[in-house]
Amino acid sequence: MMEDKQMAAEASIQYIKDGMTVGLGSGSTVNFMLEKLAERIKEGLTIKGIPSSLKTERFAKQLGIPLTDFSNTTKIDIAIDGADEVDPNLHLLKGGGGSLVREKIVDQAADRLIIIVDSSKTVSKLGDSPLPVEVLPFGFEVTTEQIAAFGCTPVLRKRDGQPFVSDNGNYIVDCKFASIEDPQALHEKLKQITGVVETGLFPQMAHNVIIAREGRIDILER
Amino acid sequence: MMEDKQMAAEASIQYIKDGMTVGLGSGSTVNFMLEKLAERIKEGLTIKGIPSSLKTERFAKQLGIPLTDFSNTTKIDIAIDGADEVDPNLHLLKGGGGSLVREKIVDQAADRLIIIVDSSKTVSKLGDSPLPVEVLPFGFEVTTEQIAAFGCTPVLRKRDGQPFVSDNGNYIVDCKFASIEDPQALHEKLKQITGVVETGLFPQMAHNVIIAREGRIDILER
Repeated sequence: MMEDKQMAAEASIQYIKDGMTVGLGSGSTVNFMLEKLAERIKEGLTIKGIPSSLKTERFAKQLGIPLTDFSNTTKIDIAIDGADEVDPNLHLLKGGGGSLVREKIVDQAADRLIIIVDSSKTVSKLGDSPLPVEVLPFGFEVTTEQIAAFGCTPVLRKRDGQPFVSDNGNYIVDCKFASIEDPQALHEKLKQITGVVETGLFPQMAHNVIIAREGRIDILER
Repeated sequence: MMEDKQMAAEASIQYIKDGMTVGLGSGSTVNFMLEKLAERIKEGLTIKGIPSSLKTERFAKQLGIPLTDFSNTTKIDIAIDGADEVDPNLHLLKGGGGSLVREKIVDQAADRLIIIVDSSKTVSKLGDSPLPVEVLPFGFEVTTEQIAAFGCTPVLRKRDGQPFVSDNGNYIVDCKFASIEDPQALHEKLKQITGVVETGLFPQMAHNVIIAREGRIDILER
């Protein structure tokens, strides 16, 4: 729900303090956060953002949020990002929007990762949605066969009949597993495959998950 | 030595039979193999090649070697490739030429991988040369810090003062380790890092290594 997304976004802003380098995630809930953040910056808050997708970079620039990049600093104080699925252990499934790799690089570089979602994203176990896996275009047919061997049905993501291309110039394969019992183990196995760049499983990365449900906020903590 | 490279290249040709799909590696020794292969094709040998780099693709086309790609078949009967270092267990270190990822995808898809080298490439233990690791350009500064934590000094590969860009649009970081005790374990750890696309360690992949030393051929078998 849109109101819940806005509410979760607003609740995350309190964690951002003067002088911080802030990782800026991607997606519709993050966009609400960027709007709130831009308001605070106009009121005098001094931060620098590192965007996790070209879309976020464009929107942040449009909103007047000062940006930096990893050539200036490899330390991020806090990252705020969305997720497609969140389980009770704060494991995440991400990548529906196609920016999973840059998001993971930014989120991992952060001392603290805060995830903002509405309650439709909470699941008892990850895997309701297909798992996005970013793969190199070269040999993706071979790579996809190796991914399928782990028990899923990989589907090459397309847009207008052509393979969808990520910000990194790669393809995304959406992999529906019957269920994901151990996100960390599955991620490690898939990541080992030659041609796999990254998976949309983010186990043990979020420090907090802010969930808005019909106007009420819950904050999970790891 | 050039004569030894040619000799190793020539010795590999006998493994190529009519009707095979052949993975074509990269590098100076492989180029000699391509020339020999082109001669056999002119004499009537019928094969299809899958090149592992844009350079090899161009040279093979120039020589008139019929090519195919993974959109037509994901099965390769035999791959013939070079290496920068070969140890007595047939573990390889590759990537000096910058094509390590495509080479690994092709080499792994092959039922049989044959490595051709002159004796200057044989080592008792891998790691005399820096280990090439392909990384995403986005956040490579963060990725490189994480690689360094495994005990090496990573150096971003440059060409004409700019970062070298692989056939996949990525960067390569050359990582000098004091020694590489367990190539499989080191590869697995590095490959797990977000932003690492692939490493130049090819443990337990070669089925044969053909070594030419001062006019004599040795063939190692796994």
